[in-house]
Amino acid sequence: MFSKETYINRRQVLKKAVGSGLIILPGNEEVGMNYRDNIYHFRQDSSFLYYAGIDRPSLFLIIDIDADLEILFGDNLTIEQTVWVGPQDSLNIDAEKSGITTVQPFSFIEAVLKNAVQQQRAIHFLPPYRAAITLKLSSWLDIHPNEIAKKSSIPLSKAIIAQRSYKTNEELVEIEKAVDITAAMHLKAIQSARSGMTEYEIAGQVEGTAISLGGHLAFPTILTVNGQYLHNHAGSNVLKEGQLVLCDCGAENNMRYAGDMTRTFPVSKTFTTQQKEIYNIVLKAEEAAIATLKPGTFFKDSHLTACKEILTGLKSLGLVKGDLDEALAAGAHTLFFQCGLGHMMGMDVHDMENIGEEYVGYTETIKKSTDFGLKSLRLAKELEEGFVLTVEPGIYFIPELIDQWQAEKKYSEFINYDKVQMYRNFGGIRIEEDFLITKDSYQLLGKPLAKTAADIEALRNY
Amino acid sequence: MFSKETYINRRQVLKKAVGSGLIILPGNEEVGMNYRDNIYHFRQDSSFLYYAGIDRPSLFLIIDIDADLEILFGDNLTIEQTVWVGPQDSLNIDAEKSGITTVQPFSFIEAVLKNAVQQQRAIHFLPPYRAAITLKLSSWLDIHPNEIAKKSSIPLSKAIIAQRSYKTNEELVEIEKAVDITAAMHLKAIQSARSGMTEYEIAGQVEGTAISLGGHLAFPTILTVNGQYLHNHAGSNVLKEGQLVLCDCGAENNMRYAGDMTRTFPVSKTFTTQQKEIYNIVLKAEEAAIATLKPGTFFKDSHLTACKEILTGLKSLGLVKGDLDEALAAGAHTLFFQCGLGHMMGMDVHDMENIGEEYVGYTETIKKSTDFGLKSLRLAKELEEGFVLTVEPGIYFIPELIDQWQAEKKYSEFINYDKVQMYRNFGGIRIEEDFLITKDSYQLLGKPLAKTAADIEALRNY
Repeated sequence: MFSKETYINRRQVLKKAVGSGLIILPGNEEVGMNYRDNIYHFRQDSSFLYYAGIDRPSLFLIIDIDADLEILFGDNLTIEQTVWVGPQDSLNIDAEKSGITTVQPFSFIEAVLKNAVQQQRAIHFLPPYRAAITLKLSSWLDIHPNEIAKKSSIPLSKAIIAQRSYKTNEELVEIEKAVDITAAMHLKAIQSARSGMTEYEIAGQVEGTAISLGGHLAFPTILTVNGQYLHNHAGSNVLKEGQLVLCDCGAENNMRYAGDMTRTFPVSKTFTTQQKEIYNIVLKAEEAAIATLKPGTFFKDSHLTACKEILTGLKSLGLVKGDLDEALAAGAHTLFFQCGLGHMMGMDVHDMENIGEEYVGYTETIKKSTDFGLKSLRLAKELEEGFVLTVEPGIYFIPELIDQWQAEKKYSEFINYDKVQMYRNFGGIRIEEDFLITKDSYQLLGKPLAKTAADIEALRNY
Repeated sequence: MFSKETYINRRQVLKKAVGSGLIILPGNEEVGMNYRDNIYHFRQDSSFLYYAGIDRPSLFLIIDIDADLEILFGDNLTIEQTVWVGPQDSLNIDAEKSGITTVQPFSFIEAVLKNAVQQQRAIHFLPPYRAAITLKLSSWLDIHPNEIAKKSSIPLSKAIIAQRSYKTNEELVEIEKAVDITAAMHLKAIQSARSGMTEYEIAGQVEGTAISLGGHLAFPTILTVNGQYLHNHAGSNVLKEGQLVLCDCGAENNMRYAGDMTRTFPVSKTFTTQQKEIYNIVLKAEEAAIATLKPGTFFKDSHLTACKEILTGLKSLGLVKGDLDEALAAGAHTLFFQCGLGHMMGMDVHDMENIGEEYVGYTETIKKSTDFGLKSLRLAKELEEGFVLTVEPGIYFIPELIDQWQAEKKYSEFINYDKVQMYRNFGGIRIEEDFLITKDSYQLLGKPLAKTAADIEALRNY
């Protein structure tokens, strides 16, 4: 964990920003897979970890701003529990490491919160994403479960986003560790994939690499010969010569910071000419978008820069026609690039997505579009120094979408559907890297990994 | 999945056993790790899978026994969801495969259940282990969340246990596949572990092996140099010459049947003499317990057979003294073997633990003991043909427990604490295999894996 001063300082800033009342920061609990005690690997809540620094289940932190009191609620192990899981530091020792001076049994929290409700104090909490937390808050705060999200605190949400959005140097060190593990996972996939293997066979090696290097998956691995479906997880398809493998995977390191990268590589030793043409368009789109990264750039413009490059490239291949600025404004590129260019990254791979994209990626003045394509753009607002984000354009030939839009004659002034149909079994290509926004530019995070078609082929030429 | 007739027949038997009313079988939902859409790998509820055969999230099966109606509630993908995850069979096609003829949108379930509540019909459901299901049932059935477990149906629990306890030949094929993947995970651990590696480094390879062979972890891997703590997960300890590694891991195969095995091996090429002595006592205890397996044996007696062997062996080493039958009756063996001999295994590694151990492992006449040791025995009742279970004795030197009991002079007429203290840094040894109870004996499940100290050493002698 970071130094005690880091956590004390984070909480000071938070208290000042929220101003008054009670802040509830729930830690996560264990979740049973198929019965209560057969648990998924534990994942702490990121905001709890950011302010309390303790990566153990079943804890709550309550900050009483007015009384300037911080209480960690949780229980120590009994001797019988020690028999099962081994000795652990007492909660007092853990709390002390992040400068929290008061620890109370978990059962005490109910009275504290019911008392605060009775006194009609302002109680701030984030919208829960786990039903177990919803149930607890509902019971303690006497709010119907369906109302809990609505009663969550916008001031608290904004205050936390205002802190967590700016990555400090000590956080960047952790993020780079996660990105380096992520690159090792990709190297494993690129170097071990062979015609005749199944997707899950490679995914197992990728996930094993993350764990063997002291991390975990930051998100479910996408490793598929059907890369045209954006979040298609590793399945039981058998790799065949001539196909593309799209691998979008990432590790979180032991401090729970995430990496998130994508590479697309051929099952054969080399890309086909058609694959290389599309690959180079995606690469050019990525590089054009990267070149825009600096404080002051609206990330929506970075996104549109990539979209324009995709249209330009596809026009050169005859799939797109007409005026490209008009095509872009109309949204014709969304037949090929249906999602957004990237997202904030930190302790969550989509950083702070649980708190709300309307605050993380948008502002009072820049609201999210409801248009197909733009509505999947998770980040649009002006970039600032200290932001960490992904850049991940792609070209995806989705047969279902092509057929539906062709039948509707959608964008027919911009799309050569006859030509597009020749790519209907092409699949999808995405390239993704992670960046820090610096004082007047950007910095690639982690050690560089093969990215050009030639460099990828060199890794495949075993 | 199995044949349509299998699922139709299972539901017929269930309906007949429960008799009348409505049966609710909730499928599991996705669970967010750190925000809603960043999900753990999906694990279907085992009872839902047993009766509905569909391994997809966010489904409920309702069986109206009186109207002889089976309705699957769930939603098909929209075209926009297809863009993200790829095309899926419609729910009608999935339902048809298990002989369910009626499919309705998920939102319709509320009216059906509220109507049944109004008509005061008997509504049967299992105690939920996920808060999301508790929340839904609470809302639809108008029962306070804290009351849901208490209102769960004992007739339904017993009826399901009466079916799932007896494994059919087609289930045994799947269980053996899971056990064989499990053995491959162990081979990987035994052959790749080296002095200087960290526990998680090996655990990553073990987990990767499960996924690469088309499975998943059946439970969190225990891989540790501190095997004395029974459920100590893989951590960051570095393996050192002279230590023991205890690996208790298992796969579930793609049909979600589990395997569960344990091996203990030396970090060095060979066991020390002291390690081999304790190893051979555990092995002898396992073999003695296995020899008792047949219909009519109470598994509690199999457990006590192993406990007696452990006492006998430890007496020969001078750690135990006095009359061993008295020591056994008093529970002196629980200083070394604090838990139970084994558990039922099937779609859940602790099969049907969510439904309730009092029915799965015990009966009206054999109730669970509250004594330390026996209270952790998950299975005590008379064995029957078709049961699948684990046998997993162990000897664990837990310093905290030794010190506490020595200070209390607990069992001092049976324990030579001075001698035991010489083993306080020994660690723990467990050996575990999976068995089917046959017509008049037992059968080891899966291909045999090295088990004697000599065979283990042969695998380590690289």
